[in-house]
Amino acid sequence: MESHAAAGTAPSPAIVFDTLLAYQRSAALRAAIELGLFGAIGEGLHNVASLARRCSASERGIRILCDYLTVIGLLAKENGQYQHTITSATFLDPASPACVGPVSRFLCSRDVADPFLRLEEIVRTGHTTLPGEGSVEPESAHWVEFARSMAPMVAPMAGPLSALVLKDVSGPVRVLDVAAGHGLFGIEVAKQNPQARIVALDWAAVLEVAKANAQRAGVVDRYETLPGSAFDVDFCGPYDIVLLTNFLHHFDPATCVGLLKKVHAALKPGGLAAALEFVPNEDRVSPPMQAAFSLIMLATTPSGDAYTFPELEAMYRKAGFERITADNVPTGTHTAVIGRTPRAA
Amino acid sequence: MESHAAAGTAPSPAIVFDTLLAYQRSAALRAAIELGLFGAIGEGLHNVASLARRCSASERGIRILCDYLTVIGLLAKENGQYQHTITSATFLDPASPACVGPVSRFLCSRDVADPFLRLEEIVRTGHTTLPGEGSVEPESAHWVEFARSMAPMVAPMAGPLSALVLKDVSGPVRVLDVAAGHGLFGIEVAKQNPQARIVALDWAAVLEVAKANAQRAGVVDRYETLPGSAFDVDFCGPYDIVLLTNFLHHFDPATCVGLLKKVHAALKPGGLAAALEFVPNEDRVSPPMQAAFSLIMLATTPSGDAYTFPELEAMYRKAGFERITADNVPTGTHTAVIGRTPRAA
Repeated sequence: MESHAAAGTAPSPAIVFDTLLAYQRSAALRAAIELGLFGAIGEGLHNVASLARRCSASERGIRILCDYLTVIGLLAKENGQYQHTITSATFLDPASPACVGPVSRFLCSRDVADPFLRLEEIVRTGHTTLPGEGSVEPESAHWVEFARSMAPMVAPMAGPLSALVLKDVSGPVRVLDVAAGHGLFGIEVAKQNPQARIVALDWAAVLEVAKANAQRAGVVDRYETLPGSAFDVDFCGPYDIVLLTNFLHHFDPATCVGLLKKVHAALKPGGLAAALEFVPNEDRVSPPMQAAFSLIMLATTPSGDAYTFPELEAMYRKAGFERITADNVPTGTHTAVIGRTPRAA
Repeated sequence: MESHAAAGTAPSPAIVFDTLLAYQRSAALRAAIELGLFGAIGEGLHNVASLARRCSASERGIRILCDYLTVIGLLAKENGQYQHTITSATFLDPASPACVGPVSRFLCSRDVADPFLRLEEIVRTGHTTLPGEGSVEPESAHWVEFARSMAPMVAPMAGPLSALVLKDVSGPVRVLDVAAGHGLFGIEVAKQNPQARIVALDWAAVLEVAKANAQRAGVVDRYETLPGSAFDVDFCGPYDIVLLTNFLHHFDPATCVGLLKKVHAALKPGGLAAALEFVPNEDRVSPPMQAAFSLIMLATTPSGDAYTFPELEAMYRKAGFERITADNVPTGTHTAVIGRTPRAA
């Protein structure tokens, strides 16, 4: 360690303290989003008094919160005035088309966060402490919040995924969107192919959100809903394309294979099933966001995981798929894993 | 923003997602400490099966937790085996003399963390949502946990602070340690000056912890305890030295001045009062740890703060102190602010 000290890299406990207190970063950002702080700064308010008035908050609270956000790089402070950084202007100001602020309602929701208060127990037992099946419990209200809040996070992926699945098909296509959520992926397919018809499958309450989004996107006349569990309902095939976005990671491999078999049976010859997943490298510790995602599955599901490409490929193969490919989608956090059914003889 | 993209620094929402999910970092580290994971790795266990057995945990849980800790830089993974990093070996393995693991019991305790679940409301009102006076409520059990857990964080500062306050005195000294907590600061003075007699002031239950530490340090024959509130009890002066470590930040400036006046009255001529504090720069957003500390005071107290040196200096002056100095102590997170009473004419 002396050689490290000499090289100016003596070990420091700072990362330990910073990690133990990291929950305060989440709380500060979530509070700022809820208070409308980033919007107020975007409107041109920059000092404590005017921001406190605009956010209906105390000056002491706003001053300390803004200073903290500056410390963690989500605001800038110049001559005592708070300013947007490029990051906060782009991704946290509600006036920005790229704003992702609403995702805090899901990512920091009690449904997602509470299990982390008992993570030690979860590591001991190997599965969520949430009642029943955790986040995959039937009709979980969790997914209504997901559908309402998470569109800004996935929106940048919808266009590229849609282009991928439509690459080799044209004309009328029938598409099943499993666990549709906000519905953005199926809706984007309908926008890119005016002859596409979408069947969105999810819990009934979630489909209300998807249907409203389809209405807004002007594709509701080609948008059907199929309420229920992906494991139980009749898919009402055959389809050209089945979308499985952010779904397989909630289940163990055997359950995924079972579902993929059901998907396979609902596809036309030469059809495709496209999963959109956090896919870590085989070392399971890179890239950071994909690898870290496993912990959320540990905390909130009985047996989910972030699967590597070889693991997903093996599941597809066991279910009868062939020509299995992986494509990174442009935001860099997700991979589209696509398997095809054999073409008609 | 195009110039940024061209320079390879296009804004990315990654920091936003990372911040919203930061609470998971705290949870993972706390769980690993509680499970004894870092000790197990230090004992030479490196694979999932043996670590799971040693920690009485599931293999799924241990694998995902270890991968996550690797992602956030607190373990290393090589050929599927988990290893200590220099940081985890030094600061997280209980076998290391510099281990700070126990601080998680306080920094991530419900008492400290729960207010952050309601931070939006706290920013609105400007003070803690904890009942009564929050963390400064009389006889709060909070401080027993503090005294039990936080010694490893402050231990590296005790020697330098003690050397500072003893610099200009020799022979018999009488020292009052206000809000003694674990007692480490007063105990260190007693160790450095064999003629020093310490009076430790704190809630009665906290003083049990301090007294046990004094016993272990072999100075208990020169160690008295004075149970009660620093604002209410008779200090039983006069003293040569009064220690006010990590105390003033819990209160508003007027309250601090009132206490400093009481301290001043209990000091001999030429005596000194030494506060140990997180002291941010006047911009209040640097250095990071000192500036970020204000948020904990917002969340857990009615009106505490991390004060700048000019603010602390003004408080000391109003209380009658002179020759007020600031010295950084070696760990870099705290500053010793020392004021002196006038020398005898």
